[in-house]
Amino acid sequence: MRNIKTIIISSIILISNLGGQTVHPNLVLTSSDVIEIKKSIGTVPLFDKSFNEAKEKVDLAIESPMEIPYPKDAGGGYTHERHKQNYDEMYLSGILYQITKEEKYAQFVKKMLDAYAVLYPTLGRHPQGKKQVPGKLFWQTLNETVWLLHTIQAYDAIFDWLSKADRKNYEDNIFNPMANFFINDCSHSFNLVHNHGTWMVAAVGMTGFVLNNEEYINKAIYGSNKDGESGYLAQLNGLFSPDGYYTEGGYYVRYALWPFFIFAESIHNNLPNLKIYDYRDNILEKALYSAFQVTDSQGAFIPVNDAIKAKNWLSKELIFATNFVYARYKKDRQLLYLVNLHDEVSLSGAGLLAAKDMMKNEPIPIFNRKSVEYTDGPNGDWGGIGILRFGDASDQETLFMKYGSHGLSHGHFDKLSFIFYDNGQEIIRDYGAARFVNIEEKFGGRYLDENDSFAKQTIAHNTVVVDGKSQFDGDKDLSQEHHSEKYLFNIGDSDFQYVSAKESNAYPGVEMHRTMMLVNDEKIMKPILVDVFKIKSTNNHLYDLPFYYSGQFITSNFKYLASTKTKSILGEKHGYQHLWKDAEATVKSISQFTWLQNSRFYTITSNTENGDKIYLAQIGANDPDFNLRNENALIIQKKGSDKTFVNIIEPHGAVNPIYESTIGSKSSFENLRLIYDDENYTIVEIKGINKIDWKIMISNNNNDGKAIHSLSANNENYNWIGPVSIKK
Amino acid sequence: MRNIKTIIISSIILISNLGGQTVHPNLVLTSSDVIEIKKSIGTVPLFDKSFNEAKEKVDLAIESPMEIPYPKDAGGGYTHERHKQNYDEMYLSGILYQITKEEKYAQFVKKMLDAYAVLYPTLGRHPQGKKQVPGKLFWQTLNETVWLLHTIQAYDAIFDWLSKADRKNYEDNIFNPMANFFINDCSHSFNLVHNHGTWMVAAVGMTGFVLNNEEYINKAIYGSNKDGESGYLAQLNGLFSPDGYYTEGGYYVRYALWPFFIFAESIHNNLPNLKIYDYRDNILEKALYSAFQVTDSQGAFIPVNDAIKAKNWLSKELIFATNFVYARYKKDRQLLYLVNLHDEVSLSGAGLLAAKDMMKNEPIPIFNRKSVEYTDGPNGDWGGIGILRFGDASDQETLFMKYGSHGLSHGHFDKLSFIFYDNGQEIIRDYGAARFVNIEEKFGGRYLDENDSFAKQTIAHNTVVVDGKSQFDGDKDLSQEHHSEKYLFNIGDSDFQYVSAKESNAYPGVEMHRTMMLVNDEKIMKPILVDVFKIKSTNNHLYDLPFYYSGQFITSNFKYLASTKTKSILGEKHGYQHLWKDAEATVKSISQFTWLQNSRFYTITSNTENGDKIYLAQIGANDPDFNLRNENALIIQKKGSDKTFVNIIEPHGAVNPIYESTIGSKSSFENLRLIYDDENYTIVEIKGINKIDWKIMISNNNNDGKAIHSLSANNENYNWIGPVSIKK
Repeated sequence: MRNIKTIIISSIILISNLGGQTVHPNLVLTSSDVIEIKKSIGTVPLFDKSFNEAKEKVDLAIESPMEIPYPKDAGGGYTHERHKQNYDEMYLSGILYQITKEEKYAQFVKKMLDAYAVLYPTLGRHPQGKKQVPGKLFWQTLNETVWLLHTIQAYDAIFDWLSKADRKNYEDNIFNPMANFFINDCSHSFNLVHNHGTWMVAAVGMTGFVLNNEEYINKAIYGSNKDGESGYLAQLNGLFSPDGYYTEGGYYVRYALWPFFIFAESIHNNLPNLKIYDYRDNILEKALYSAFQVTDSQGAFIPVNDAIKAKNWLSKELIFATNFVYARYKKDRQLLYLVNLHDEVSLSGAGLLAAKDMMKNEPIPIFNRKSVEYTDGPNGDWGGIGILRFGDASDQETLFMKYGSHGLSHGHFDKLSFIFYDNGQEIIRDYGAARFVNIEEKFGGRYLDENDSFAKQTIAHNTVVVDGKSQFDGDKDLSQEHHSEKYLFNIGDSDFQYVSAKESNAYPGVEMHRTMMLVNDEKIMKPILVDVFKIKSTNNHLYDLPFYYSGQFITSNFKYLASTKTKSILGEKHGYQHLWKDAEATVKSISQFTWLQNSRFYTITSNTENGDKIYLAQIGANDPDFNLRNENALIIQKKGSDKTFVNIIEPHGAVNPIYESTIGSKSSFENLRLIYDDENYTIVEIKGINKIDWKIMISNNNNDGKAIHSLSANNENYNWIGPVSIKK
Repeated sequence: MRNIKTIIISSIILISNLGGQTVHPNLVLTSSDVIEIKKSIGTVPLFDKSFNEAKEKVDLAIESPMEIPYPKDAGGGYTHERHKQNYDEMYLSGILYQITKEEKYAQFVKKMLDAYAVLYPTLGRHPQGKKQVPGKLFWQTLNETVWLLHTIQAYDAIFDWLSKADRKNYEDNIFNPMANFFINDCSHSFNLVHNHGTWMVAAVGMTGFVLNNEEYINKAIYGSNKDGESGYLAQLNGLFSPDGYYTEGGYYVRYALWPFFIFAESIHNNLPNLKIYDYRDNILEKALYSAFQVTDSQGAFIPVNDAIKAKNWLSKELIFATNFVYARYKKDRQLLYLVNLHDEVSLSGAGLLAAKDMMKNEPIPIFNRKSVEYTDGPNGDWGGIGILRFGDASDQETLFMKYGSHGLSHGHFDKLSFIFYDNGQEIIRDYGAARFVNIEEKFGGRYLDENDSFAKQTIAHNTVVVDGKSQFDGDKDLSQEHHSEKYLFNIGDSDFQYVSAKESNAYPGVEMHRTMMLVNDEKIMKPILVDVFKIKSTNNHLYDLPFYYSGQFITSNFKYLASTKTKSILGEKHGYQHLWKDAEATVKSISQFTWLQNSRFYTITSNTENGDKIYLAQIGANDPDFNLRNENALIIQKKGSDKTFVNIIEPHGAVNPIYESTIGSKSSFENLRLIYDDENYTIVEIKGINKIDWKIMISNNNNDGKAIHSLSANNENYNWIGPVSIKK
């Protein structure tokens, strides 16, 4: 795993002399929070609800047999889940002790810590550990850092109640050995600018606050060399672009924001002079907003890179971040919309404030997802992602296009890929990750082999594959060195929004330029997506452009040969070996392909020309463990050097199965062609019903918004201002 | 299509002398209803809502260009949809005229009738008609009868407002020719004891009431020979079992109840002496309740025979029936639960009453779906269907087992098949029908070829296929002559409910006996389904038992050879040609197969023995138009003469993808075997965690509930009372 080059921190002021006597608790929950909470309990419904849920959980735990099993299982297995349950119960019990001062809660934590203090020193590497440095309690050090992050808060909460001997016991047998294990044995992870590194520095840094250990704190914040090249601040610099986009994408930001915010809040409470929430022009605030923007209309994170699609903005991990950003920044009531959906607050001062402010007699606006672009890279110059939206959340079209960097170890070879949403569903789909998180039967819940062999490969994405090989020939280190280049992002006219980017490193000698437009017009039922994918090369190549869809095939205007009695695979490597060939066609002119998903029709109209091929494919070949989902793709194949794929993706019509009525099952488009296409300009003609006769003019090499362009083609003159224009 | 033998109607009293002057309107909406409605308008929210929706629709239609296109398209096509829209608008406009007395509504109906009076006489057979007798306005006479049923109500509503000349014009050019076309040219359909026949007699009979034509009325009620062998009463006798189960199943009863009730209400208003709602011991009331019972926990009709799965109890067709049964029988407030879900009432006296009673300050109980059995056949002696349920609608297990008659032309070869629901979803699935209703691109919205070649075949169902052939060798006439025999249905103990039936005609020389039990116990997480399928034959056969499932394969305890680089088909005919072979296994002992659906695990534990085979299959081979859904099946294969399949279908555990937690991914069962199995008795042993050691004892030939059984097996004595017992 390569490290991201970070912005050098201008001045490092190491922490010294914290003052021998620290107040407890003082991490996320502070002693002054406790006073406030005690005053408010019983009067703030949402806080009370969260408090009571915690109480029920812990009261049940107290009555149940305590188990600290010898570590044995991988993710999803019994011992794994039990140690997770244990830290969660200790953490909550600590908070309950603080709020209620009932001794049984402190006793519960103590009893468990006593057991861990006996167990932990006996542990070697975890039997299921597969990495160079596995955990001890868990198969991955990642889970172990999460354990420490929770347990140190429990310890902080009962610190004053414990005897000195107990404290010495836990610090000698658990906290110091574990922190030192992380700092020394896991120094690679500890210094990594990556979410695993964030968990580790947060856990160690918080341990430093409670144990009054400046070394831990300085190493957590500035890296183990204390030079700012790694550690928490380097992570804040390196993992987010200046506008808050997290380089690993939405699925991982959800997870990463948890330690980022838990540690931020701990720093805020212990080192207020560091002004952590102001750091890097409020980067923590920006990070949360960008995470919420990169969700679909149902709140699910748009699956970028290794992503589990079930994850959405209701994830428990985001409860803290939402509360803290609400409390520490501008009390944006939009965030209370999320708090309301979470239906839970953190048991902290910020959680109490959010819950109280829910009660104010002021409207809570719906969180506004908008068309937005985020740059990628620490300096915002590694390309980015563009999101075009049309309509409100009840029936929103969303185009997500990716033209940033590789995205570290979880990155996919998917430059210039896109995902398209409509009607509350993913229409042109991204596979996400091949993994069943926490299901032990599925390779211990880890990433499956098919994640590498299929999900990461270029053919698994809605972007052009050259000569059947993945981008950068599947070399992630090489890919991480490059990024696509933004060309355009314009949302000034909501009826004609566009995003455009170029990629020239993924395939040596091949220049790719994709421009995607969301076009609305009264002549059509719903806005359409127009996709112009221009490829330039001095040599001849085979270009495959897949569109993954789900739902039922309805009709096509081209004849194909279906695989009826036997099925074969589409290729031998780079992901093709996982695709069954369902049908094959050699087409003569423009192609139309219609399917039905969730009671709405979708048609892809493609500027195919004589000799182009179309394949229908299904994911699932070479999958002896049935690890893959059997999703479908339409793959358009062109041969040659300079080629331009033009496609219209068109939502239309409706089926009402209850009323047995169908409207608009036919595409509105009849013709689609390139009437001009060279290095400088591309002009697309679109014709259809209701006398649709549109021309889209694209300037390929001058993205100046004020440039005037003039061109003759097909005996007509085209004049326009700016890089892209539509003439109706 | 064969006709059902009907119960002879004991006494036929033909209608005569209706009295020259009839009151208008007097079909579903009566003149006294109109008085009531006028008084109530503006005070009954749900009625007002329905009224206003009708008004908006018609007001828009009045402002829009009227179109009466020359018939051209099949289902889903433009002219088809437009003629449907037209009758709906006329029907509503007629009602609006009655309620508001605004002339524009009468004018609208008149203008449209004027156009139809010109068009209709010019029409020959519909160009898309495929049947022997196609329609004229529509490709099927079925749609044409629906047109008449609506249009005659519109005519009735404006009857008094029209001039005599207008009436003569419509009656001469539309109503009489159409009614006579149905009676004479379509006499086969008219006399059919089948839902198409019901639509036809209802339309003709209602025309008779409005036109004061006794001939139409008598023929509609007693058949065209006026002998009671066909017509409406014969349909009420022949299509429902004595307890109200409709022989074609839930999907069709939804559709059939519409004309049944529209005509019932018209008869109720015109021929009160016929006491139609009391007929056959309140058969109409029973029919509606049974339709609602045969739905899953989400309200979707359990897919019996040709069924489109999207249909549920919210279907518009059921609004009338629900209102009428509420008003004409015992004002059961459970029905208001449905009215509330429909969020719409019929614009009739019964609709007004239901809407008013919603406002009463009395609780509206949830409609109670329960374990219930319905007999099939006019005399209730053609086997039946059994439904076992556990839990309330929020998370209900439902077993549906079918052991009735073929179910007329839409029947499937699926005797002793079952469907199992859990967690709001179909778990062991039935394919339903292969059809895209009203989607013109899919064979004009008609049943697809694959409906015959796959969906109706035995291998498409969860029941045993013998020697790779469908039941009755796929001969539906032969199948219609036979039915399975009920053996047991017992729901006395909600923790041990069972249903059992036998089939001895489907495969000559093969006796089949299936017993299915829903077993609850505190040692398991959720009730399990235990399935004992006993087969007896003097000859050796190949027995295939498929279980169709959806979701993701998780694990199996047997080794299999997966189809990785090529796939082939499972057979050449009887539906096997549509199944891809995904994997094949030869097993040695008991098999377990686990999958994940909707965040819950399911395991099938099977008593396979050395040499039995298991296939994993996917639907979709030999499907060049991609008409089939790619669903999955596990197929267990045994060879021999007398064989007993024992399977446990077990819901267990949960995955929470938001919280990344997994519990109970492993089956609770470790062993499953037959410890005794002969003609008279079968004893199954089930062993598992928590010291589960259960014996299920089945008496195979004595279903006397009080019989005492005693048996020695494996050095143990078994004594029990009644046909089935569980010993824990």
